Amino acid sequence: MEKLSKNKIKWIRSLRLKKNRELESLFVVEGSKMVDEIIANWSEHIVCLCSTDEAFQSRFESYHVSIQSMKELSTFHSASDILAVVKKPNPEGSDAKFILAIDGVQDPGNLGTMIRTADWFGVDKIICSKETVDIFNSKVIQSSMGSLFRIPIVYADLAVYLCESKLPIYGALLEGENMYNSKLNSNAIVLLGNEGNGISENLRTMITHPILIPGKGQAESLNVAVAAGVILAEFAKP
Amino acid sequence: MEKLSKNKIKWIRSLRLKKNRELESLFVVEGSKMVDEIIANWSEHIVCLCSTDEAFQSRFESYHVSIQSMKELSTFHSASDILAVVKKPNPEGSDAKFILAIDGVQDPGNLGTMIRTADWFGVDKIICSKETVDIFNSKVIQSSMGSLFRIPIVYADLAVYLCESKLPIYGALLEGENMYNSKLNSNAIVLLGNEGNGISENLRTMITHPILIPGKGQAESLNVAVAAGVILAEFAKP
Repeated sequence: MEKLSKNKIKWIRSLRLKKNRELESLFVVEGSKMVDEIIANWSEHIVCLCSTDEAFQSRFESYHVSIQSMKELSTFHSASDILAVVKKPNPEGSDAKFILAIDGVQDPGNLGTMIRTADWFGVDKIICSKETVDIFNSKVIQSSMGSLFRIPIVYADLAVYLCESKLPIYGALLEGENMYNSKLNSNAIVLLGNEGNGISENLRTMITHPILIPGKGQAESLNVAVAAGVILAEFAKP
Repeated sequence: MEKLSKNKIKWIRSLRLKKNRELESLFVVEGSKMVDEIIANWSEHIVCLCSTDEAFQSRFESYHVSIQSMKELSTFHSASDILAVVKKPNPEGSDAKFILAIDGVQDPGNLGTMIRTADWFGVDKIICSKETVDIFNSKVIQSSMGSLFRIPIVYADLAVYLCESKLPIYGALLEGENMYNSKLNSNAIVLLGNEGNGISENLRTMITHPILIPGKGQAESLNVAVAAGVILAEFAKP
């Protein structure tokens, strides 16, 4: 197996930056669980694999990297032993009926967890506002646990998207109505907002059904990924 | 206001380690939101405050720290301008009826989010196994968003605790029964397990009601804090 050149190391490291990922339409996936997921579902998107195992063999363009170089490449505390450089997909899913719209979520762990949760509850498509953190950020990929590769996700101007859609729009607002007061069905858009500020002003007026998860204790709010879980569970309920 | 001495800086930094927090029965809270929460609810527990604001005044023992020293003290990427050293509480709540039992959750963000979620849904008490990450870890404090100070939390041998309890024990298991098939009421213990391994073998046999959150998509599982949210929401439902 060929050794990974210094130039290639530099190139892979450059993909840590969103602007380079966008320029090249590529991203990096780390760890054997995630790489296996890519090989299983997205093999035609694989550009190359890098492994610390000299005996590693695969049908893809593959390179050997030293453990030291892998540490340089990895964005995680403990570097894994394999990574893949992958072409970004062109997400489809135009006939989607159960849609999660995400307005400005900033924490990569929250976004990844929301993608994983949406996959669990059968969401057809995710629309992120342009202010939302990049789904190809390494921490989003990690916390999505592979769901990122199974669900179409697009970035769009949410105001335009919501305005043009004919589906009911359920928005999670602290001043919304108790979500258990109405029967929910999954021909809908569920809109969730930023961790600190909630849903943007200009999108609030487009919400056809403002909803609230009723609470009992003294917490001021729920974490946005937990709120997504509680709401999507209710929509997905048989 | 007195300047914080080098020895005191060393002492506060030493509280980053769980063993020192246990030895001294103290922990550190960062950021004005959290410190305000402590002042409002736990003022008798405050040992001292440290602020970067020279004009800072309060009724508590207070020190001035330079921005540079605050960076040394802080465990966060961007250091805040205030922190408090706080005595650990002696949690009570023996007549608790709605209990969250946590078996070996390792990620501080997950544990903090679970505490916040439990607070929202009116959980009376949280019991953590000894393998669960320390609730006084700075990331747990941060992600609990103040709920840590409003809900009694103890560490215990969960096997002994569950064995002695007379409440029904609902355990989230991937092989459990659809949770929507039975009416849940909040006189119960809800047991959730470790991120990777779920609930420990020796605790599984104590579960009186194995439950599952039904899914529709292809995700293998839910994040443990999201699962806590979906389950606690169902229990808390009016």
